[in-house]
Amino acid sequence: MGIQKPSLPQGTRDFAPEVMVKRNFILQTIRNTFEKFGFLPLETPAMERLDVLTGKYGEEGDKLIFRIFNAGALRNYSDQDFQEKGIKIISEIGDRALRYDLTVPFARFVVMNRGTLTFPFKRYQIQPVWRGDSPQKGRYREFYQCDADVVGTDSLICEAEIILMVNEVLTQLGIADFTLKINNRKILAGIAEVIGEVERLSDLCVAIDKLDKIGLEKVLQELLGKGFNEMAIKKLEPFLNIETSISEKINLLKNQFQTSEIGQKGLEEIAKVLDLVKTFTENESFEQDLHLDWDITLARGLSYYTGAIFEVKANGVKIGSISGGGRYDDLTGTFGLSGVSGVGFSFGVDRIYDVMEELDIFPKEGTTTTKVLFSNFDAQAEAFALPILRKFRQNGICCEIYPTSSKLDKQMKYANARKIPFVILIGSDEMQSNLLTIKDMQTGKQEKQSIEAILNLLQSASI
Amino acid sequence: MGIQKPSLPQGTRDFAPEVMVKRNFILQTIRNTFEKFGFLPLETPAMERLDVLTGKYGEEGDKLIFRIFNAGALRNYSDQDFQEKGIKIISEIGDRALRYDLTVPFARFVVMNRGTLTFPFKRYQIQPVWRGDSPQKGRYREFYQCDADVVGTDSLICEAEIILMVNEVLTQLGIADFTLKINNRKILAGIAEVIGEVERLSDLCVAIDKLDKIGLEKVLQELLGKGFNEMAIKKLEPFLNIETSISEKINLLKNQFQTSEIGQKGLEEIAKVLDLVKTFTENESFEQDLHLDWDITLARGLSYYTGAIFEVKANGVKIGSISGGGRYDDLTGTFGLSGVSGVGFSFGVDRIYDVMEELDIFPKEGTTTTKVLFSNFDAQAEAFALPILRKFRQNGICCEIYPTSSKLDKQMKYANARKIPFVILIGSDEMQSNLLTIKDMQTGKQEKQSIEAILNLLQSASI
Repeated sequence: MGIQKPSLPQGTRDFAPEVMVKRNFILQTIRNTFEKFGFLPLETPAMERLDVLTGKYGEEGDKLIFRIFNAGALRNYSDQDFQEKGIKIISEIGDRALRYDLTVPFARFVVMNRGTLTFPFKRYQIQPVWRGDSPQKGRYREFYQCDADVVGTDSLICEAEIILMVNEVLTQLGIADFTLKINNRKILAGIAEVIGEVERLSDLCVAIDKLDKIGLEKVLQELLGKGFNEMAIKKLEPFLNIETSISEKINLLKNQFQTSEIGQKGLEEIAKVLDLVKTFTENESFEQDLHLDWDITLARGLSYYTGAIFEVKANGVKIGSISGGGRYDDLTGTFGLSGVSGVGFSFGVDRIYDVMEELDIFPKEGTTTTKVLFSNFDAQAEAFALPILRKFRQNGICCEIYPTSSKLDKQMKYANARKIPFVILIGSDEMQSNLLTIKDMQTGKQEKQSIEAILNLLQSASI
Repeated sequence: MGIQKPSLPQGTRDFAPEVMVKRNFILQTIRNTFEKFGFLPLETPAMERLDVLTGKYGEEGDKLIFRIFNAGALRNYSDQDFQEKGIKIISEIGDRALRYDLTVPFARFVVMNRGTLTFPFKRYQIQPVWRGDSPQKGRYREFYQCDADVVGTDSLICEAEIILMVNEVLTQLGIADFTLKINNRKILAGIAEVIGEVERLSDLCVAIDKLDKIGLEKVLQELLGKGFNEMAIKKLEPFLNIETSISEKINLLKNQFQTSEIGQKGLEEIAKVLDLVKTFTENESFEQDLHLDWDITLARGLSYYTGAIFEVKANGVKIGSISGGGRYDDLTGTFGLSGVSGVGFSFGVDRIYDVMEELDIFPKEGTTTTKVLFSNFDAQAEAFALPILRKFRQNGICCEIYPTSSKLDKQMKYANARKIPFVILIGSDEMQSNLLTIKDMQTGKQEKQSIEAILNLLQSASI
């Protein structure tokens, strides 16, 4: 066998250390916030039974599912079997598949463990998912999702807390300019009712969802094409044009929804959520401070939402939504457990990463975990350094020694390439005086300090 | 379609929150230690090209690799294609596979990025791997590995640091009684040379590796069966029986290895590693304190080790090794990059978990992240609680409010089931006096405290 030139499968990526450190900063911020709000971690296997996934993501989705088979399973089949059974062999061996999202495995988990779980059940889940999409810029075949869901309660406190969590995460990441759009599917149902197209709610949602991208004219054309009558479209138009304060919107819609019970319910819910956020924050200008925008044209394509819906976009960058979610009333019905209401949302870590790169707001000091490199002049200096290295580590400092006594130039290049902020130099002077030379790699400044003083410096410099 | 009763694929597991919290404690301890020693995080995709993995794990290993295909790819094949191409179709569509370990993807990464990486390159990697083994107790088809490797240096400081890292991790986890066996493949090579069986080193390693399990007699029988001559076996026997101090072992072997250069080199290396550990710790009784045992019969089955080898077992529990590793001289050769020496080791997180469960040493306070539940009597108490909840979270306390005003009994049951250590009760008294009732769920004790005092209590109680 010749020598291989290795490569990666299309649409997959390695995360090198400098990327990992930034990704971990994002994931840790999300994780901390989820936990502060009482969400508990859950992990499900990458591998699910195919029948658990099939039929949950629409016909197109089903085609994008990656299926798995055991290489050894092929031993059981001859060429003749293939000729006789044809494509059916694939169903026999490929009865498992890679997770396509985190929602369906979560629903499966809830149903399988309903006897022992305590409801309301609040879980978060941060794991990769796999989709056989054609790879393109910003779209991968393996990517992470970060979901938090509460199931088993219809309390609107959950919706209010989602608004707070989005704000906490984005603020802590340093994404200052964003918009958190909210709406409620019941309001869209009310509109469908009022315009006389109650049967076509999901066509309405799919079309309205494109308003930002294709504009009002084309949305109305699409609806015409779907069989909406002229009168309905005329009635719809003013709903798509409302630009006013939240309290005025409520008054306006109250009027319009006099004949729509579901529309009224949607209004009530959105008012209650906003009221809860105000109570939480004790802040009259909370809408502005929390970047909230109630957009009654926000629809979100996915069909299983039945109540609140959310969508978050970073402003000033050309990247789609970075977070979104909503309430669903029947997530677990397909697995035989009905009546479990829940609400959840998800952060798109790849997109958040791209936003932060574009805005150049990753913390500079966070690009490496290692704080200090001990140089290595010779065996004697090495022996002098090792116990100090150990002491620093016992005090929580991430550090290392250059493993061989090479030229200083080479060691400095290593520290620079690794972006290690400090280098400690130990020569005969240092060993005699017990004062070590510490060099700040950014400023180039170096000074002699006691071991204790250096330790204090590094501890205060660490994040 | 009827209602599904969902289940998991054989050999896979969900990690429910109470398990996740414990697993995260283990993983975080490992991660912190790796980082303190200057290792940087790396992640590679779950999906690798099949040709990257094939041929790296032996014939049996190849059969256990899980292969992947795109469900949509089947659209391109008719029944006739199956009849014509037979089993070859599988190679066409199944050209990707799930990662089988972390070592081969790491080698691939190093080779693909050799132009930009700074050597020595120290990386750690904590990710799941997949193997199509028959599932049985303690053996899964999807499980985590935690690897740390340094490549691009043959400095024995790396070996010494592995010994320190194993000690730090196991001590911090509370596993007090363990043995860290070390040896060196060059010593085994020396023995093979001295007994006149230099060609059969790998048979020797495989057989000796079973000494613990099957005993001396059967090991010698196996070697006879493999064609070792009587004389060689007679010469080997005393090597397998050495029970003495490290310094005596060195003297003894020095004598034996007078004619074996590689044996002498192995001795030198092991002596140097031990000397470095002594320098690091400034401790004369370091062997005992660091649970070290130099076992010249330690061989480890895997064939790519060429220098130091390690194996860690927890004592007093019936579980195999919980950590192991060694030095290899040609990890990346198969991908066209030769001469890259490296050393690495791995923690078995599932086994460490089992050891800690068996010893019952998981920290009790660590079984949930949520510190306190705010009860919810009525709308007024809820509104009173929300800003306090927010304040607690802003101060880093993980907390939640029961989302609806249900019966207190139900709320208490929820706190108990979730193992939340404190509940805050807010009624009219509390709202008037601004002193909240806090109940310790373990002792049942409850008292009235100011919001500030409760916050202080919870902050000091948090780990």
